Amino acid sequence: MKKATLAAISALALVTPALSQNEPEKALSPADIVNAAPQDDWSVIAPEDLMVMTLAPDAQDEKRQVVIQLMPAPFSQGWVDNIRTLARAQWYDGTSVNRVQDNYVVQWGDPNYDNPESGGKAKPLPDGLQVMSEGAYTATIPGWGMRRAARSVAAPATVLSDSYAQAAEFFKGWPIAIDSAPERAWPVHCYGMVGVGRNYSPDTGSGAELYTVIGHAPRHLDRNIALAGRIISGMQHLSSLPRGTGALGFYAAEEADKRTPILSIRVASDLPEAERPQFEYLSTESESFARYADARANRRDPFFIAPAGGADVCNVPVPVRPFEYADE
Amino acid sequence: MKKATLAAISALALVTPALSQNEPEKALSPADIVNAAPQDDWSVIAPEDLMVMTLAPDAQDEKRQVVIQLMPAPFSQGWVDNIRTLARAQWYDGTSVNRVQDNYVVQWGDPNYDNPESGGKAKPLPDGLQVMSEGAYTATIPGWGMRRAARSVAAPATVLSDSYAQAAEFFKGWPIAIDSAPERAWPVHCYGMVGVGRNYSPDTGSGAELYTVIGHAPRHLDRNIALAGRIISGMQHLSSLPRGTGALGFYAAEEADKRTPILSIRVASDLPEAERPQFEYLSTESESFARYADARANRRDPFFIAPAGGADVCNVPVPVRPFEYADE
Repeated sequence: MKKATLAAISALALVTPALSQNEPEKALSPADIVNAAPQDDWSVIAPEDLMVMTLAPDAQDEKRQVVIQLMPAPFSQGWVDNIRTLARAQWYDGTSVNRVQDNYVVQWGDPNYDNPESGGKAKPLPDGLQVMSEGAYTATIPGWGMRRAARSVAAPATVLSDSYAQAAEFFKGWPIAIDSAPERAWPVHCYGMVGVGRNYSPDTGSGAELYTVIGHAPRHLDRNIALAGRIISGMQHLSSLPRGTGALGFYAAEEADKRTPILSIRVASDLPEAERPQFEYLSTESESFARYADARANRRDPFFIAPAGGADVCNVPVPVRPFEYADE
Repeated sequence: MKKATLAAISALALVTPALSQNEPEKALSPADIVNAAPQDDWSVIAPEDLMVMTLAPDAQDEKRQVVIQLMPAPFSQGWVDNIRTLARAQWYDGTSVNRVQDNYVVQWGDPNYDNPESGGKAKPLPDGLQVMSEGAYTATIPGWGMRRAARSVAAPATVLSDSYAQAAEFFKGWPIAIDSAPERAWPVHCYGMVGVGRNYSPDTGSGAELYTVIGHAPRHLDRNIALAGRIISGMQHLSSLPRGTGALGFYAAEEADKRTPILSIRVASDLPEAERPQFEYLSTESESFARYADARANRRDPFFIAPAGGADVCNVPVPVRPFEYADE
């Protein structure tokens, strides 16, 4: 039987006190709503879609593990496949975190890739990687138009105005942006999203070089770089790394010792069962999520005075939590 | 004579190569536009509006200095006055950074203030602090309505659609949100903004407890907490601190040694002239800024394939840079 053991949700309220049963329902905080969601509203993430990145221990010899969730179809699947291929070839092992630019990105991979601070030779890539095109930066979702129209009546809080698209929405647990003419959708550069580093066009990157967002969403990168996943655990091991002083936040030659070694990146389904992390997300098609999104846009819990009346899609982070299967 | 010595602007392009003179003008990156702005488009920040926060040296014994710019009238001036009063009473000296919550805030002040991890007694505040009301979370700008109408014709790129207000704009170098009925404006919680910690309403905070945003803009805090300034230098000394493992990201009792000591916070105008940092910002009323904002919303420089056609106000950071007066 599946049992949630930890309800810590990232990026929630400044203050989220426990409410007495006498409080009116309108005072529920987003965290309260998430914590009260029935187990049926949570969806398990397949182990094939989880990557476990193990960094070298920190200065206090503490372990550092980062878990990445790969993006679901129809988005970015060529890059997602490449990332699994690279992990299974153990290509990432021995690479490092090479770039930390404040309010922008942390980037890892071969320290000699696209690095103005390094004159070394790039590490050869394994066979079997797909070459992707810019067309794959967006996708169409069969049946999505009708579905969206239906949902916008039932759950308007999950359809958001957006500065970078006609609207923003959620799909299978992910924030996406949508245009209607032509109808297409694309994943968005929110905090913690994982993207595929690339050089100049028409190179779209293989997946060997990855980055995650550690600041305000750089949404101008949407449809210009592929997004292939997001960090769902251990983000602090990347976001709190010392910033690089070289160009673009790369560690300069004289601070190469600040590069954090990557011991390994593995597909969770390839790990022994006891070592697999297990996560679930709050279904973005659920009524609980609609109530959560509404509460994010209209904070009525005790700390708040002026509900905003709206929300940016990156300010409605999809709740994700670890769980354990209880022994029978 | 004033001379810009450093053109490093935070949070700009992923790749911003030098362009040859043969490139068409449309290929200028935001950084190119800022670097080409005439000196007349830069406005000096008064030393009275700069605060110098000196943290204890880091583990490598490197100095850590953070510079805060205080917010201009008509916004938050009661809290701004309080912060100067607290600094001049040397109240902040010996306090510490007590809370680091990933993708949210870093908070500093008395470790016993509003800290579920501490049972100690709060440090007494100096005399002369103003008690502010919630009404001061917003302000009206005399003449702003007409001015805005005029500017929206001349420089549409500086008037932005917004998920949290009727529109977002820039005023004296700061991003603000605006409503028209009733006409009012307020500062916005972008990355690096400095706010005034508070307890539950109707307490609006004194300015003794401060925080800065280290993640995606938590715009739902707008009009719910006062913003009094922003970090313009040394942000990395706060954003890269280890995250707290206690409730709300406070350092838990057993990790109290992670609190970063604050040696002093001083108003720059109180420092000897040789120790005063000097900064200038790109006037948000200038033509250069309008071109910069347009380029942020429509990236046409070589790395980009699909210009976004819009921008979030927090994704158009106002360029700020240090300068030195050259010896005559």
